[in-house]
Amino acid sequence: MNSNEIYMQQALKKAWEYQLRTYPNPAVGALVLYRNEIIALEAHQKAGTSHAEVLALLEAYKFLSKKELDFDRFDSKKAHEFLYTLPSNYFKECTIFVTLEPCSHVGRTPSCASLLAQLKPKKVVIATLDPIVGHDGGIKRLEEVGIEVEVGICEKEALELLEPFLIWQERAFVLFKIAQTSNGKIGGGYLSSKESLTHVHQLRAVCSEMLIGGNTVREDRPTLDCRFTGEPAPDITIYAKEDNFDRDIPLFSVSERYVSITNCLDFSQPSFILVEGGGGMFNALKENIDWLLQYQTPKLTSHPLGYEVEVTLQYLFQDKKGVDLMLWSKI
Amino acid sequence: MNSNEIYMQQALKKAWEYQLRTYPNPAVGALVLYRNEIIALEAHQKAGTSHAEVLALLEAYKFLSKKELDFDRFDSKKAHEFLYTLPSNYFKECTIFVTLEPCSHVGRTPSCASLLAQLKPKKVVIATLDPIVGHDGGIKRLEEVGIEVEVGICEKEALELLEPFLIWQERAFVLFKIAQTSNGKIGGGYLSSKESLTHVHQLRAVCSEMLIGGNTVREDRPTLDCRFTGEPAPDITIYAKEDNFDRDIPLFSVSERYVSITNCLDFSQPSFILVEGGGGMFNALKENIDWLLQYQTPKLTSHPLGYEVEVTLQYLFQDKKGVDLMLWSKI
Repeated sequence: MNSNEIYMQQALKKAWEYQLRTYPNPAVGALVLYRNEIIALEAHQKAGTSHAEVLALLEAYKFLSKKELDFDRFDSKKAHEFLYTLPSNYFKECTIFVTLEPCSHVGRTPSCASLLAQLKPKKVVIATLDPIVGHDGGIKRLEEVGIEVEVGICEKEALELLEPFLIWQERAFVLFKIAQTSNGKIGGGYLSSKESLTHVHQLRAVCSEMLIGGNTVREDRPTLDCRFTGEPAPDITIYAKEDNFDRDIPLFSVSERYVSITNCLDFSQPSFILVEGGGGMFNALKENIDWLLQYQTPKLTSHPLGYEVEVTLQYLFQDKKGVDLMLWSKI
Repeated sequence: MNSNEIYMQQALKKAWEYQLRTYPNPAVGALVLYRNEIIALEAHQKAGTSHAEVLALLEAYKFLSKKELDFDRFDSKKAHEFLYTLPSNYFKECTIFVTLEPCSHVGRTPSCASLLAQLKPKKVVIATLDPIVGHDGGIKRLEEVGIEVEVGICEKEALELLEPFLIWQERAFVLFKIAQTSNGKIGGGYLSSKESLTHVHQLRAVCSEMLIGGNTVREDRPTLDCRFTGEPAPDITIYAKEDNFDRDIPLFSVSERYVSITNCLDFSQPSFILVEGGGGMFNALKENIDWLLQYQTPKLTSHPLGYEVEVTLQYLFQDKKGVDLMLWSKI
């Protein structure tokens, strides 16, 4: 029994809500405990916006001060500036849980480690150190000013959360997404909850490109945009031997989208590639798929269409998405 | 954000580990918070043994006293006697979370509400009141002695946890269990992790009877015992039009087991019926199945055997079971 593990699991769960959506940043979650009360639970949501610790500190401030913020909390510069105006020791009765070592470098956002060193919470609990060379040193800065630091709580889970981030430092991270019933059927029209569909569109909005099979294009005649979120649609690569596609298929008419058609795929460039398809596409790309994301809808059906693939998975994380189950696996 | 919900969710999750295994008792979980530390997380495990609150208080005692117990903690009489010897206010800095109102009546075990009234923890947080007429009154006893009581935290989830218990007060609760791959295939031999198989045997050991289809008996020639747990095997009802079964099929030779063969099923008697089978059996019993338990193994396969059923589910709870996913649904 370890209370810190339970708090860290909440932070990890929160981070998984934004898994891949922070591309090219890592998914990170943070929780603030004040005495025995959880007063903030936040995650980094989008690259270029406030980090998880910063959002959590702002929520903690709101709880402790009973005041609202008069600026956009996702604006990291304003958030840091505001937090620096608080009296040192403002968070002296708070413990901060964060799934990744607070950043020590200044990138698109200021350094979180410097901010925490200034704010001096009672304790900072960290699941895992920053694995990127040159990005470490966050805990050193905290320890220098006498903040108690504990590292390694739920480290295995934190490293699983970070895996896409580590992969796309080197090459393409490839996610295969599939929507199915609880007995593995993929036919019969829209299967997923509105929450799952929205989530797919959120992933489409941040991916480097979408990759789909020629048969899916011909048979489903899809649009593959982000209409559930209103964001620009991703570029698309159609994996096909020849270009014999009817240009009336909606995906070709989405504005500001580049569509390429090729039978030669290259996964060597750092990127996030989202693949949507069925069993044929899965089998064609099996060696290149890193993770599988299944949206499992709460139904059993007798539809004939399933998918036949031979592969061993490792379940990483599961959570509800509306009424659906969202199941992340490593191939 | 509510810390109490997170603590109660831990207690609920613990209770789900023993869901149905407490038959004919309800599944109940309990957690003890001491200052901001979770010092005990327990569940009722088996009818006739110590209740969740009692096990949690014993673990809390061990934590606070740094002493071990010199008796069997599952022996509820000894557990109550021991806890009554502790000074009143021993748990005065503790908050107890329990998924069901502590019992006020004396059954096979003494009353937990009376025990808590004597021990006077700082606060008792309860997910839902005892729904059985005559079993309520637990909180009244706590409030009479000045213990702060909060009711209704995660009540919806607590009522889902209790549903089998409420059903088997009136009639048979029918659970359909199926083991499948992550793409819904059920063929290809043992699919499940050792932890899932053990769990199946734990359910077999407590059910009133197992119900299986004639085709499963003929084709799989199963044993259907509890060899993973060493407990006595359940009685079996084979659902079949005629008795033309080879008596060399292992299930007929399990000692102290009664096997009946019938095509007329009766679900009117309070009981817990465990059904194992495939799509045919599911379809035959569809109107009578209350819950579905899927053990989903982390594999995609191309085995031809799936199951075809048309039914809408409501996902209730999911957790890992070894490497498998254990998914509980309501039909």
